[in-house]
Amino acid sequence: MPLLLISLASGSLAILIAVGLLRNLQKAKIHPGPMAEIGSYIAIGVKTYLSRQLKTILSLTPLLALVIYFFFGHWVALTFMLGVFTSLTTALLGMNAAIRANVKTVQDAHFSPWHAFHTAVFGGSVMGFSITGFSLVILSILYFFLKKPDLLVGFGFGASLAALFAQIGGGIYTKSADVGADLVGKVEENIPEDDHRNPAVIADQVGDNVGDCAGRGSDLFESFSDDIITGMLVASIYIPRYGPQVLFFPLLLQSVGLLSSIMGVLSIKRLKRFRPETAFNVGMLVTTALAILGSFLLAYYLTRDLSLWLGGVLGILVTLVAAYVTHYYAGANGKPVHDIAEASKRGVALNLITGLAYGLQSPLASIVTIVIAVSTAFLASGGSLLAVVAVNIGTDLLIGYIMTADAFGPITDNAAGIAEMAGGEPSVVRSLSSLDAVGNTMKATTKAYAMSSGTITAFVLFATFFTTVGLKAIDVSTPFNTAFLFLGIALPYLISSLVIGSTAKTALQMVDEVRRQFRTIKGLLEGKANPDYASCVDIATKNALREMILPGLASITIPIVVGYLFGAWALGSLLVGAVISAALLGPFFNNTGTSFDNAKKIIEAKGSKGTFEHQAAVCADTVGDPLKDVAGPSLLIFMKLIGMTALLIAHAVR
Amino acid sequence: MPLLLISLASGSLAILIAVGLLRNLQKAKIHPGPMAEIGSYIAIGVKTYLSRQLKTILSLTPLLALVIYFFFGHWVALTFMLGVFTSLTTALLGMNAAIRANVKTVQDAHFSPWHAFHTAVFGGSVMGFSITGFSLVILSILYFFLKKPDLLVGFGFGASLAALFAQIGGGIYTKSADVGADLVGKVEENIPEDDHRNPAVIADQVGDNVGDCAGRGSDLFESFSDDIITGMLVASIYIPRYGPQVLFFPLLLQSVGLLSSIMGVLSIKRLKRFRPETAFNVGMLVTTALAILGSFLLAYYLTRDLSLWLGGVLGILVTLVAAYVTHYYAGANGKPVHDIAEASKRGVALNLITGLAYGLQSPLASIVTIVIAVSTAFLASGGSLLAVVAVNIGTDLLIGYIMTADAFGPITDNAAGIAEMAGGEPSVVRSLSSLDAVGNTMKATTKAYAMSSGTITAFVLFATFFTTVGLKAIDVSTPFNTAFLFLGIALPYLISSLVIGSTAKTALQMVDEVRRQFRTIKGLLEGKANPDYASCVDIATKNALREMILPGLASITIPIVVGYLFGAWALGSLLVGAVISAALLGPFFNNTGTSFDNAKKIIEAKGSKGTFEHQAAVCADTVGDPLKDVAGPSLLIFMKLIGMTALLIAHAVR
Repeated sequence: MPLLLISLASGSLAILIAVGLLRNLQKAKIHPGPMAEIGSYIAIGVKTYLSRQLKTILSLTPLLALVIYFFFGHWVALTFMLGVFTSLTTALLGMNAAIRANVKTVQDAHFSPWHAFHTAVFGGSVMGFSITGFSLVILSILYFFLKKPDLLVGFGFGASLAALFAQIGGGIYTKSADVGADLVGKVEENIPEDDHRNPAVIADQVGDNVGDCAGRGSDLFESFSDDIITGMLVASIYIPRYGPQVLFFPLLLQSVGLLSSIMGVLSIKRLKRFRPETAFNVGMLVTTALAILGSFLLAYYLTRDLSLWLGGVLGILVTLVAAYVTHYYAGANGKPVHDIAEASKRGVALNLITGLAYGLQSPLASIVTIVIAVSTAFLASGGSLLAVVAVNIGTDLLIGYIMTADAFGPITDNAAGIAEMAGGEPSVVRSLSSLDAVGNTMKATTKAYAMSSGTITAFVLFATFFTTVGLKAIDVSTPFNTAFLFLGIALPYLISSLVIGSTAKTALQMVDEVRRQFRTIKGLLEGKANPDYASCVDIATKNALREMILPGLASITIPIVVGYLFGAWALGSLLVGAVISAALLGPFFNNTGTSFDNAKKIIEAKGSKGTFEHQAAVCADTVGDPLKDVAGPSLLIFMKLIGMTALLIAHAVR
Repeated sequence: MPLLLISLASGSLAILIAVGLLRNLQKAKIHPGPMAEIGSYIAIGVKTYLSRQLKTILSLTPLLALVIYFFFGHWVALTFMLGVFTSLTTALLGMNAAIRANVKTVQDAHFSPWHAFHTAVFGGSVMGFSITGFSLVILSILYFFLKKPDLLVGFGFGASLAALFAQIGGGIYTKSADVGADLVGKVEENIPEDDHRNPAVIADQVGDNVGDCAGRGSDLFESFSDDIITGMLVASIYIPRYGPQVLFFPLLLQSVGLLSSIMGVLSIKRLKRFRPETAFNVGMLVTTALAILGSFLLAYYLTRDLSLWLGGVLGILVTLVAAYVTHYYAGANGKPVHDIAEASKRGVALNLITGLAYGLQSPLASIVTIVIAVSTAFLASGGSLLAVVAVNIGTDLLIGYIMTADAFGPITDNAAGIAEMAGGEPSVVRSLSSLDAVGNTMKATTKAYAMSSGTITAFVLFATFFTTVGLKAIDVSTPFNTAFLFLGIALPYLISSLVIGSTAKTALQMVDEVRRQFRTIKGLLEGKANPDYASCVDIATKNALREMILPGLASITIPIVVGYLFGAWALGSLLVGAVISAALLGPFFNNTGTSFDNAKKIIEAKGSKGTFEHQAAVCADTVGDPLKDVAGPSLLIFMKLIGMTALLIAHAVR
């Protein structure tokens, strides 16, 4: 048990730093004025939405907890509720920092770009440290009392379910506002992004926080937690080979990653001489180096089996390769995005077709890398599934750092927006916009991470589920397993359809409302009258909360019904079909959407705003929005949620 | 063997009718004039392209045949070459009828709409009867000499490979021309569809023939043939249960379908009083009724097992349900297409997002129907795989009729185009346009058929492959099978990416060429000068022939390399992953693309040509074009090709 103290201590350290940073932000003085006012609009919108989202999700929880209690006993019901609750409140904590950091970033940009960068990074790190810290602390304590890894599955299930709701709700919110603001503002009225005359602009800024920031926080919280839980389930099988201490390997490996991430983030403080993007890369290097070293020591002293270390290193490598591939396909410097921008000269249709073609092949290289990494680790360890767990947690080692960089995105995005809306000095707006661009690159890295993490988890998940239920294989020589493979593969299509459809429906209302305001509010376009921001915020809030329920519940009820009605073999086939389907469809959506976004940015960068090709690119970006920020991220969470659901009911259906 | 005479005779009858109808068309007098001239442009374009395509494919064949000879002996190599050759020449035969029937349809429209309808139907039936007739005749003769169903796999492999090449090449041809013509003509220059001033208009008309007509012919030829071959492989296992005559069940069931289709098509002759759409439906009803009756007699007298009859009926039902679902999601009367049209009022982005959302869920209902039908047949027969074969061939029973209706589409499309270009009388143009709309509905039915046929074949295929190689299941408890499932599921994404990318690349050149002609040819837009049709035809031809090679070869080499390098278990996982992935991605592409097309037609029908919403809808239609006419159909062929490839090498890799 002293080993548990290590994970408990590293988790607590992360929480302490997070809380300290948040208090600093809360104490910092915000000068009154238009920027503070806009900041408070955003803060109120965010708090209103998140508290209503919290209420909605928490009102669904007791019913589910009751069902779980009935079937699986009080411990699982308790850990389930803890999972939901921790996921949501942790994200709230990070969110609180983000909505303070945005205004402060603008303010600090008046001193120097470095100050602004610094504030945004440490504002983002509150999310990075709290999601990882709370996960480690609570899982350590839970294991201390419960002593059985199976009972932790409830926690993972709760965390994943909360994440899916948060991502879908936040995603619909942010994208309906974004699409509404862009289609009417940028395309029809030809006013700039983030223009204060646009009625949807506050909803758009709120959306950046509740979708990109809070949603991603819940997502990474569940990844981090689920990987510990499935890891401990596998580790418990390997006690005869390595001794009882191996059970703590997943927790300790995550602790190594968390401590490395803390060092990486703190090292940015000392990198004043560098440009923001370089500083981020150096910090990433520090994190990576420490994680490699730390996991070597851990593997050697805990298990004397360096193949587990190899697994961890391969996990890190996979994340880096996936990030590189994502940058190639979706980043502003790759051939694909340049081809898309070039195609825009022939209108939006060829832009879209070109982007779809690249997007469809974009997941392949990462999949091949993952397959090679997992197979290598498995072979090198002489067929140990624990080595696959090491690869899986290896992808998590940078999570504290990656989440920091990711949360940096919405903060700078907001900061740039606030500066633009409040009519800030051009030099300030420019330096914030360049930080915003850095943030966008970082977001793509997070998605690449989430994709590889989800895919590698699948390997562990399939093996764990099939071992638990006592099946070894999917028998396709009769039609029944094939039938459930087909149904499984169709599930991610259904989920995507529902969330994209909801976004479209909400965006349609948003477009109509923005058009109505431009038509009926006199002097709005001339800047003489103020738009009604609240009505747009209201449309996004109401729709997001209503529309997240169906896809969220469908994701868990379908596997549960299949499991209970037909048994473990059917659930197994459904699980395999659904997970492998989501592993392709998710990154396809993410990369395609991001490539449209960056093609638009390339065209804007060369000063072609308002031209034929720019209009085409803005349109394509709008099509990509619900793909990359609603459907794609939701699928990556869905992959893990269906796994946790299957593991939760595995004992009951076998 | 006398049973073989029945299939031989029904096949020969179909060929005789096809040849008779073709000769009638060739003898018919075409009045000289602008229509005949345009018709001859199209005919020359089609013949040039198809003969060059034939040469390209045939030049690849000997090399492949040599490899096959080396590994599998001379019989398989011979049947392979026969498969390629028959597929291509059969499609040529049907094509020859189509390019004569189009001008004749315009000419007959001057008498009465009924005459035009009649000509187009019987012109299309040449394709319908020749693909089914030749398949039955050649497979009967081959079996008579070879006596072993395994040796026929080479024929199926050849037919599928030729179909994939023809579909990809034809698809790239037709869609690059269509996109090029639409984007510059309709969107930029605001001239009507099929306007003779548009330089890409002839290429577009040629494309309708080589892509939609010849491509679909090869596709259905391989479906029809492959289902006989896999059916006979399964039937050979059931000889102990039903006696040796059961081996001919697949051939005879297809004969029943063919004879019913002939009766169905001929019955249209007697339906002068009905509107075209009603006449088609009545003919379909006749075909269906006869097929149900015939399969009852066959199942009863050949096997005394009515569960096989039930299977056949379920197969027909599946096709009808899938057609209904397709009409709902992609047809002009369903809610989805109306929602898409409504969303167009807010621009192309919301049109596309709405369409994608509906498209993603569109395959689900058909998949569920298929799963229920296959499971029911399997259970009702007490676990007989032959009942699943019956469901599979059940979907083919209407193939002769469906292909007739499908080939009717490009004929009327061409006819409407010729009348428009030659400045025909408004009443003639109108009656041909309404026939064109009927043709579009029929095309959607064919795609629904192809989708259900491909999916049901998967059930037979998996079982046959895994039985042949002596594996029972996919073991996902180690990472290796999971790895190949992932690679398999990525394959259809890769193929789609390649073919959509090629279409985009070609369309880009087409847009530039059409723009160049409008810019440099003086008086073109005013109708005082003629465009250079040939240069557009040349761009489409060259690109299509070059770009079809890579995706075509990738589709067969990847499974072969995996099979030989890693063995049957790896190939099995790859096969399952690839087939189930294509079964969703294919219909998603087909339905999404078709729904955009019909949304545009709805807007045009209410007279909103040239408005903001119409421009949006035309753009979305263009995005959907490569999805519905290149990627989607190619994937449905790919599903069967990879199956035939796996069966071909099954004995060698196990």
